[in-house]
Amino acid sequence: MSASVGLRRVLEPAGVLPQAAWRLDASPEIAADEVRIAVKRLNLDAASFRQLSEKHGGDGAAVRAEVLEIVGTRGKMHNPVTGSGGMLIGVVEEAGSESPLGLKPGDRVATLVSLTLTPLRITDALAGWDGKSEQIPAEGTAILFGRSVVGVLPDDLAPELALAVYDVCGAPALTDRIVREYERDVTVTVLGGAGKSGSLSLAAARLAGARTTAIVRDEAEAASVREAGLADAVAIADARNPVAVAEAVGDPATITVVCVDVPGCEHGAILATAPGGTVIFFSMATSFPAAADGADGLAADVTMIIGNGYVPGHAEFAVDLLRRVPAVRRLFEARIAGH
Amino acid sequence: MSASVGLRRVLEPAGVLPQAAWRLDASPEIAADEVRIAVKRLNLDAASFRQLSEKHGGDGAAVRAEVLEIVGTRGKMHNPVTGSGGMLIGVVEEAGSESPLGLKPGDRVATLVSLTLTPLRITDALAGWDGKSEQIPAEGTAILFGRSVVGVLPDDLAPELALAVYDVCGAPALTDRIVREYERDVTVTVLGGAGKSGSLSLAAARLAGARTTAIVRDEAEAASVREAGLADAVAIADARNPVAVAEAVGDPATITVVCVDVPGCEHGAILATAPGGTVIFFSMATSFPAAADGADGLAADVTMIIGNGYVPGHAEFAVDLLRRVPAVRRLFEARIAGH
Repeated sequence: MSASVGLRRVLEPAGVLPQAAWRLDASPEIAADEVRIAVKRLNLDAASFRQLSEKHGGDGAAVRAEVLEIVGTRGKMHNPVTGSGGMLIGVVEEAGSESPLGLKPGDRVATLVSLTLTPLRITDALAGWDGKSEQIPAEGTAILFGRSVVGVLPDDLAPELALAVYDVCGAPALTDRIVREYERDVTVTVLGGAGKSGSLSLAAARLAGARTTAIVRDEAEAASVREAGLADAVAIADARNPVAVAEAVGDPATITVVCVDVPGCEHGAILATAPGGTVIFFSMATSFPAAADGADGLAADVTMIIGNGYVPGHAEFAVDLLRRVPAVRRLFEARIAGH
Repeated sequence: MSASVGLRRVLEPAGVLPQAAWRLDASPEIAADEVRIAVKRLNLDAASFRQLSEKHGGDGAAVRAEVLEIVGTRGKMHNPVTGSGGMLIGVVEEAGSESPLGLKPGDRVATLVSLTLTPLRITDALAGWDGKSEQIPAEGTAILFGRSVVGVLPDDLAPELALAVYDVCGAPALTDRIVREYERDVTVTVLGGAGKSGSLSLAAARLAGARTTAIVRDEAEAASVREAGLADAVAIADARNPVAVAEAVGDPATITVVCVDVPGCEHGAILATAPGGTVIFFSMATSFPAAADGADGLAADVTMIIGNGYVPGHAEFAVDLLRRVPAVRRLFEARIAGH
């Protein structure tokens, strides 16, 4: 087990897994169970990009410099403030003889594990990126371990589109699973229903039989969700304001899915969920103590789940949703074109 | 709803719930749905006390001064570093005419909501506390809201004992619930099995029919768990070392319960849990991104639950466990006597 989870790549501190490490060895030589990828594009986690962009007041050159510094220092794109990463696409350069991933040189792939644990070396100084979008054209190398998750890119989706979908593909798969655990008359509220994970979660919830409500932040987002017909109801509220969220939702939902990448959404989600219900937190900006103490303080009998980015079959599930629900595909394409 | 969750006590920032507030109004005059408690004793959250004690190198006077400063500044005992609180016991002084809690002056009670949202005023400068224990004799006033949770102290338990049990009573109740969601042959590993929430969780898991393993940090803890007969198996490992935890556990468990109040236990818990299993995080030192990205990076199909301190009937459930399992009661009494 030790080898397959990448322990040999951990430089400091010793004894932790690559995600917890401060610094990884990103050198391109691979061990027998590793795979080396020629990187083509990075997709930063939304919370990470937002933090960097806000820190530098939208100065793209400064954002780019900080990303380069993080990768150079840590051997991975692991934002030390948000603790989050993102993912990448590329082409397999070399697969070790003992790699169980079934990849061969030339395969176009997306990594479905976080950049926070992926050894990464950048060789083009990110010259093709303006620092103003979470999608980064890049050249360099990345390493996959034996126990890793990777998706071969589908032929019918542009790489940028596949990457954007894969980045959040745990959300619709887990939403689907939780909806099906309840017997009937399930209602699902998605905070941040106009975003990537939000729109996929809305689509998954409806296909699993739930009645859905999207909470969005402004009229423009509300219009886009309404036009796409993505939810049975749409309401506007600041997700950080618990009272506003509870009022916008009305009757508490069976399941609340949090897809808003800003801190402070825990209490609204808890207040908006019915007793016996479930809150699924997908935002990396979620605070563990705020959620735990919040539910306690509100005497809220709700199950709170940490959104696990891995559910077996999640990548195929999300791509299938995109094919079945053209409105979701259009939202994703518009989002990518907008950058 | 606004009134019952204590919004009127929030001084800054506006619009958040008391737990998220930086500063509360702790003045002793009560509104019609509030209750004022004469404080007798505070019990700091273990992670909070540990952080304060380590920061000041075990200097009790400095720890006491910082607790007083936090309460004076924030109007609540909300550790700004750990984000956690604790709870208190006291005697009801005055119950508002519209309070739904059913309390009357003279009732001896424990608050079961976190100190992070409880308006608190201290009037004795904590003169009776040496700063070396998480249990603090104190005088002052605290306020309960309409939607609050409070337990009347049982006659057969010393107040210190009841407080220590109530502080962690969400853990055994939630462990019981999750064990019963699985059909059979359930195994439960508790990281930190020798502690308060850990020993109660072990007892609850066994009574719900699970086979249990306690992971503890040293031979002294192992001996105490073995003597108490609290678990079917006991192993020693540093919970922050994922590889050591996985090796100590052996066959991955159906359910892993994390009761170790130090950062960095997420990955060991995930690695030690079987596919389809559940990790319940009760430690306030849990990092949301470390858990989410960790499971993702390990391709671990596990459900990760944020330990909600509230489960209906949790206080009575925990007190009943203490009565049914004398070994747990002895562990609690020894822990209290040890301070």
